[in-house]
This record gives sequence, C-alpha cells and structure tokens, in this order.
Amino acid sequence: MTLPIAAAADAADALGTLFIVLLAAKLGDELFRRLRQPAIVGEILAGVVIGPSLLGLVEPSTELDLFAELGVVLLLFWVGVETRLSELTAVGRAAFLVGVLGVVLPLAGGFGLAEALGESFSTAVFLGAALTATSVGITSAVLVELRALRRPGGRTILGAAVIDDILALLILALAVGLVAEDDFDPTGVVLTTLLSLAFVAFFALGGTRVARRWPQLLEAPRFAESPLLPAVLLCLGLAAFAAKIGLAAIVGAFLAGLILAETRERVPVEGEIAPLYAVFTPFFFASIGVSVDLDVLLDWKALALVVAVTAVAIATKFIGAWLGARSLGPRDATLVGVGMVPRGEVGIVVASIGLSEQVIDKELFGVIVAMSVLTTLLVPPLLRALLARERGDIDHPQAVATGR
Amino acid sequence: MTLPIAAAADAADALGTLFIVLLAAKLGDELFRRLRQPAIVGEILAGVVIGPSLLGLVEPSTELDLFAELGVVLLLFWVGVETRLSELTAVGRAAFLVGVLGVVLPLAGGFGLAEALGESFSTAVFLGAALTATSVGITSAVLVELRALRRPGGRTILGAAVIDDILALLILALAVGLVAEDDFDPTGVVLTTLLSLAFVAFFALGGTRVARRWPQLLEAPRFAESPLLPAVLLCLGLAAFAAKIGLAAIVGAFLAGLILAETRERVPVEGEIAPLYAVFTPFFFASIGVSVDLDVLLDWKALALVVAVTAVAIATKFIGAWLGARSLGPRDATLVGVGMVPRGEVGIVVASIGLSEQVIDKELFGVIVAMSVLTTLLVPPLLRALLARERGDIDHPQAVATGR
Repeated sequence: MTLPIAAAADAADALGTLFIVLLAAKLGDELFRRLRQPAIVGEILAGVVIGPSLLGLVEPSTELDLFAELGVVLLLFWVGVETRLSELTAVGRAAFLVGVLGVVLPLAGGFGLAEALGESFSTAVFLGAALTATSVGITSAVLVELRALRRPGGRTILGAAVIDDILALLILALAVGLVAEDDFDPTGVVLTTLLSLAFVAFFALGGTRVARRWPQLLEAPRFAESPLLPAVLLCLGLAAFAAKIGLAAIVGAFLAGLILAETRERVPVEGEIAPLYAVFTPFFFASIGVSVDLDVLLDWKALALVVAVTAVAIATKFIGAWLGARSLGPRDATLVGVGMVPRGEVGIVVASIGLSEQVIDKELFGVIVAMSVLTTLLVPPLLRALLARERGDIDHPQAVATGR
Repeated sequence: MTLPIAAAADAADALGTLFIVLLAAKLGDELFRRLRQPAIVGEILAGVVIGPSLLGLVEPSTELDLFAELGVVLLLFWVGVETRLSELTAVGRAAFLVGVLGVVLPLAGGFGLAEALGESFSTAVFLGAALTATSVGITSAVLVELRALRRPGGRTILGAAVIDDILALLILALAVGLVAEDDFDPTGVVLTTLLSLAFVAFFALGGTRVARRWPQLLEAPRFAESPLLPAVLLCLGLAAFAAKIGLAAIVGAFLAGLILAETRERVPVEGEIAPLYAVFTPFFFASIGVSVDLDVLLDWKALALVVAVTAVAIATKFIGAWLGARSLGPRDATLVGVGMVPRGEVGIVVASIGLSEQVIDKELFGVIVAMSVLTTLLVPPLLRALLARERGDIDHPQAVATGR
C-alpha cells in the first residue's frame, strides 16, 4: 500500500536518489581503484551507467544539481584551504599567461573550426566561447588524489583557473550581446567584469590579510564550538555571491578557502571539512556522468564532429596553457597544459544559452556535452602518468580526517 | 547586468538560500546562548524571522525541505550511534508502554475535542491522528545538548519514538481508509504494519549482530579510506527505505546509527559524522520556523483554537508518556513525559492529507502547524530546567570533532 503523502514521498525519493548516486559513485571508485585507474573516472562512469542513457535509475534533477554544485564548491574550498596566497602570487605571472592564452587559443580554435564547417558567425562565436573555460574541479581532485597541489604547476593551474573564469564570463557576456543585440549593454559588460575583478582582489588580498591578523575571529562567536561553522558560512556566502555576480560559485569557494588557509596554524579546521568533502564530491563527479547522452555517439556525423571538436579543444588548451607556463620548466609546463584541458559546466552553460538563442542546434549541443565529458575522462589518467614517479606534499582529505 | 543563465542562476539562488538559512540559524543560536536559553529555540525562531511571515527572505522550497530532512536524518543517525541496543532493550517495557499510551491518549483527546466542538466524525479522526506522533528530533537535540541521552529516560524516549512512529503510520493508514472508502484496502494496512515491524526488527536485531561480529566490514572496501562513507551509505539507504515503506526516514537513520554503535570500539566514526551533524541540523530547526504562518495568530477564534488544541496535545501526551514511564521513577517519568510532547512533521503531514481530502479546513491546518511549533518551542526550556543540576554522560558532537 502506498500512502498518499506527497511531502513524505518527495523526501523518500530524494533520499533514495542521493543513496543510489552515492552508492554507484563509490562502487565505480572501488572498481577503478582495483584496476589501478583514477577513482574519479570510476565515479563519472558510474554516473553514466545509472543515468538515463543506460540503466535509467537516476534522471538529472534539481536536487542532484544542488548536491553536485555543493560537491564542487566544497572541493574548491578544500583546495583553497590547502593553498597559501603567497604560493599563488609566486607563480602569478605564469598563471596570468596560462589563463589568457588558455582562453584565447580555444576561442580562436572553436571559432575557426565552425567557420571551416560553414556555420554562421554567431554559431562560430558560441562554439568558441564554449571551448574556453577550464573545469578546474577535475584537475584539482586529481592533484589532491596524487598530492601534487602545492608544486608550481599545481598552483599555476589554480591561479589560472580564476583568471580563466573571469575571462570566460566576459566572453559569454559579449557572445550573448552579439546575438541579442537589442538587449546588449556594453556598460553592463564592463561593470560586470570590473565587479568580478574587484570581488576577487578584495577577498584574495583583503580577506587573507584580515584572517592573518585576526585568526581568532573564526572562533569568536559562541556558536562556534569549533571553527567549522564560521568556515562553512564563509564558503557558502562567497560562493553564493560569486554566482550572483555571474562568476562560477567555485571561485568564491576557492577564495574562502584561501582566506581560511591564512589562519591554519591557529585554527585547525581541515579535519572537519574533510568529511564534508568526502561525502559531497562524489555527487559532482557522478552527476557529470548522469548528464551524458550516449545517443549522440550513435550517429556517424555527430561522432566525427565530437572527435573534431574534442581534438581542437584539447590541442588549443594544451598549447595555450603550455606556452603560458613555459617559464616553470618543461615538466610543470606539461602538467599545466594537461591540467587545464578538462571542460565542464561552464561550456555546457554557454552551449545551453546558444541553444535557447537558436544559434546552437541540438546536435551541436550534444557534441559540446560529449566534448566536456571526454576531456574530463582523458585528463586524470594522463596526469596520473605524468606524476607517477613523483612525491607530493599535500595531505589527502580522508587522511587528514582519520589521522592516517 | 544579469546573464540569462538559468542553471547558474538556480545554483546561485539555492546556495544563497542555504547561506541565509544557515547564517540566520547560527545568529539565533548565538543570541539564545547569550540569553542562556536553548540554542535550538533560537534556530527555530530565526527561521520564523527570515520566513514569509516576517522578513520574507526565504520561502519554503524543495531544496530547503531536502536539507531539513537530511538534518533530522543525520541528527537521529548521530543519536543512534550514541545508543547501544542493549541500553534500549533494558528499558524495552517502559518504552513500549510510553509509545502505546503516548499515542492512544492524544488520539482520544484530539478526537474528543473535535467532537465537543461539533466537527464531523472524519475531521475528529484526523485531528486525533494529527496529535499522535512525537517529533523525536527536537527532544534528541536537547538531550544531546544537555548530555542526557544515555540516562534511562533518554533511552526510553528513543525506544518509544520508534513504536510511536509505527503506530502513527497505522493510524494514518486507517484514517485515510476511513475518508477514502473506495480506495480502502484493509489487507494493505496489515501488510504495511507487518512490513514496518519486520524492517525494524530485522535491522535492530540482525543488523547489530552482524556489526558486532564483523565490525571490519565497514572498512573492507578500498574506497573506505575511513569508515565514513560506508556509514553514510548505510544511513542514507535505511532512511530512504524506511521512508519508502511509509515510516519516517529518521527511523531508518536511527537504526543505521544503532548498527554502527556496535562497531564503535573498533571503527571510530563519530569524529567524522559530527561535522555533518553540525552543518545540517540547523537547517532542520530553521525550516520549522520558516514553515510558520503567523497570520493564524491574528484571528481571535483561531488563536483560541490554537490554545485549546495545544493544551490537549501537551496534556494527553504528557500523561500518556508519564504513565508509561512510571516504572523509571518520578524524575525520569517526568523527563519522558515532557520529552515526548513535541509534535512535528508527521502531524503536519497528517493535517495536509486531511486538507487535500477536505476533512480539515485551512484554518484547522494552520492551527495544527501552530500547535506543532508551540509544543516544539516549549519543550527545550522545560527539559533544560528539569536537567539543570544534573550531569550527563554523552559527548556533544562538536566536542567529539574538536577533541575538546
């Protein structure tokens, strides 16, 4: 007998979905560990298996999106906590070059490919824009797993990702302005860009200074029996604000982590963030898999387009980032080049705007999603191979939590 | 300039809502600590302030519901981890009596009150049903805060809450059967009840035995770098299953905790669950406040009805539970009587079904919600006063996490 309880049934469904996604992700993780492959690839493929293309146990939903978003927010928060501002500024020039070249080349490459295929100017601009933004979540997770976050290449990727995101925001605003001319507001674009830069500079420079001088602020409220809740509030607040002004939420979360990192000697919070990281990030990886539509791979023409777009996406990003990071030496330049390759949610957001503006058709949309997932799946094994014989210097979250 | 990014805007809104709710709850917590009042009352009232009745910063939403549900699920999971099955069976007889008498008296009281007011038979049955189920979340949180979970009264409340929930499920099924006669399926009601009993018995007895004999199971998978993820999967899985068969999700979460408690010497997982508890439970308390509609208190007739229904709800539950717990001695019997008083989501679910079946009108629905919140707000200070000069024996979650 099923009781007609809408509220209870909703909650049961949502809890059931979360259970299935987390279980599948960890089973994928388990399998890939046993095959000596990167765990997050197992989590993504588990998402493909339970998603609508194969078993159909789980559909994309707002609850899953929210958990995925929180997963990547907590991931970048953790990465921020593990990063010192001084370490970022030490690679500032390389990070800036990687950010800029790693956006310009893919934009040009995507635009050129579409033009070569005889697409319209608007479509070419949107394909270019969809190839620009790196999804730093994937690379960060691999660097955490391999304990290579704090080497020059790792820090350069983090700094470049922030610059990359600001540029991607700017390009998206310009692309939307191009196709919706009557709504276009050049002043607005300039203001948004300045606001983003001001936000990042204010919290990266001012926030870390405040945290360095008054680390006890985090423990000042009486509700703060530990620094966890003030830390989580800082993370959620900056993430929500970043998303509000059009940046990726993870930029805010990373800044919150950077600020917290300055109080680390005094206020140990890593052991408490680690369990949140461990529980939520699998939702991020699995939901990438759930969003995959395998049907697009059944059509030869679409498949050829996937190969072409993915090849351009990889080559342009690798070359741009590698050129930007040359000053770090060949090993770290290669690390940065590979690490910047994964595309993710931002490219898909650009493509979905293009879809709603009718400059991207459904096939090209599916191709862009497939490109995101392919770049995401290729990078972890490559990074792993690159770093195989090196030792890292960062603690793994679960190792922190359990003191192992 | 606002970019037309539906997905990103949704995520930003959801993160923003979570931030506002968590911030408000912790500010309410802070204020009430400074006033030397129970922190969770501050969190509930903070929800009222930001909710639609006052500031209107936050509306009830599916995201907030899900976080509230996870909050109470993690709360009862934590309580289960702190409870040994042997401690529950030691108070088994008292818990059974408390569960039964604490359901029968409020059912009769609510029915009698509605009959006395000249309501229809169906309405009287629904009002009675809405008064039956204790919301054990509130009392648990207070007992955790006051470190009194493991004294006989505390354990009796936990055992009684499970029995209470099974009986409430049965009564709800019967009440729905009464008003929707053509859909009524007596076999189904019997089967659901048997299934619930079997579920509870199977995991409470069998699950704990398995955990006692093979505690290493939790660390067997390679993804289990710590026991956290297997523990969370067990919690989510049993909670979702309990909700699926019509029980409260928290019954499943409590059972999962009970099972885990048996492995505690070998597998220390409390330090990792504590941060999840700390971050999620404020959403449960604040969302109770957000659901409040203060308008119902502006009408004298409705206000009189609120007072009458609340008085009946308190008196009948207190007397029933006190009678059931007499064998524990006067102090613990009073503790149990007070501790069983809070009503919560189950009463509101019953009322909303009554609303959709048109046997409960909007006014009576608002009255039942107000009764839930009032019983919830009254109990923490009372329990605190009762326990004021006693020492408890349970660690507070945040104390565990920080080792303080």
